[in-house]
Amino acid sequence: MERPTLDHIGVAVADLEAALPRWGALGLEAVRVEEVAGERVRVALLPFAGGGRIELLEPTEPDGPVGRFLARRGAGLHHVALQVQDLRQALREAEAAGLEPIDRAPRRGAEGRWVAFLRPGALDGVLVELCQKEAEA
Amino acid sequence: MERPTLDHIGVAVADLEAALPRWGALGLEAVRVEEVAGERVRVALLPFAGGGRIELLEPTEPDGPVGRFLARRGAGLHHVALQVQDLRQALREAEAAGLEPIDRAPRRGAEGRWVAFLRPGALDGVLVELCQKEAEA
Repeated sequence: MERPTLDHIGVAVADLEAALPRWGALGLEAVRVEEVAGERVRVALLPFAGGGRIELLEPTEPDGPVGRFLARRGAGLHHVALQVQDLRQALREAEAAGLEPIDRAPRRGAEGRWVAFLRPGALDGVLVELCQKEAEA
Repeated sequence: MERPTLDHIGVAVADLEAALPRWGALGLEAVRVEEVAGERVRVALLPFAGGGRIELLEPTEPDGPVGRFLARRGAGLHHVALQVQDLRQALREAEAAGLEPIDRAPRRGAEGRWVAFLRPGALDGVLVELCQKEAEA
């Protein structure tokens, strides 16, 4: 697989409005806050200089994936999203290498992109999201 | 504070050699493996395209910071490192904003850079490392 770029680092937070000033003190200001209904979160996008961003994820429901993570582990680093050129190809190569997709096929994520998650078990406990920017996957 | 760049994402792993092929399947190949005696870890550097990298951290001693993390939480996302222009200034601003430095003054990290960590308590459970590339801090 081609070397991916970092798309974002997802951080689970209990309270987005309380979190923003603290990250802002590190120069990481939110450029947008949006609700992603499919993931049952409100998301604040905090870009790095030079590419990539932190996404602060506040659950809108306790039984969504981030809500359950918060209840179990508390706030903290939740996932890493890698941007690839060809998501279907990346999923095939990941499976062939023994990684386990949670999503067998790309599905729609925020901003019209295509996403698929891999199980953390084979990646040292790290939940990895693969994403592709283009409209077709 | 100026918007920082992402320097790296630190991932605690039990076995570096076992981890490398799995990350390699995602296109993240190690360009270097080195021991950082001060942190009691062996580190593999896996650059993203376009800047930033993943650092896989294998403890060389069970009672170092990463060894203790592994014993308590298991393998997984450990910290996020942000590159700033002026580390002393960044620490002053972070403290003024209510963030708590673990290191009151910059100390030497790997590759001759200067580093300082902030307590995760005020940053949604995320351990943040601030680093500066230049020789003087």
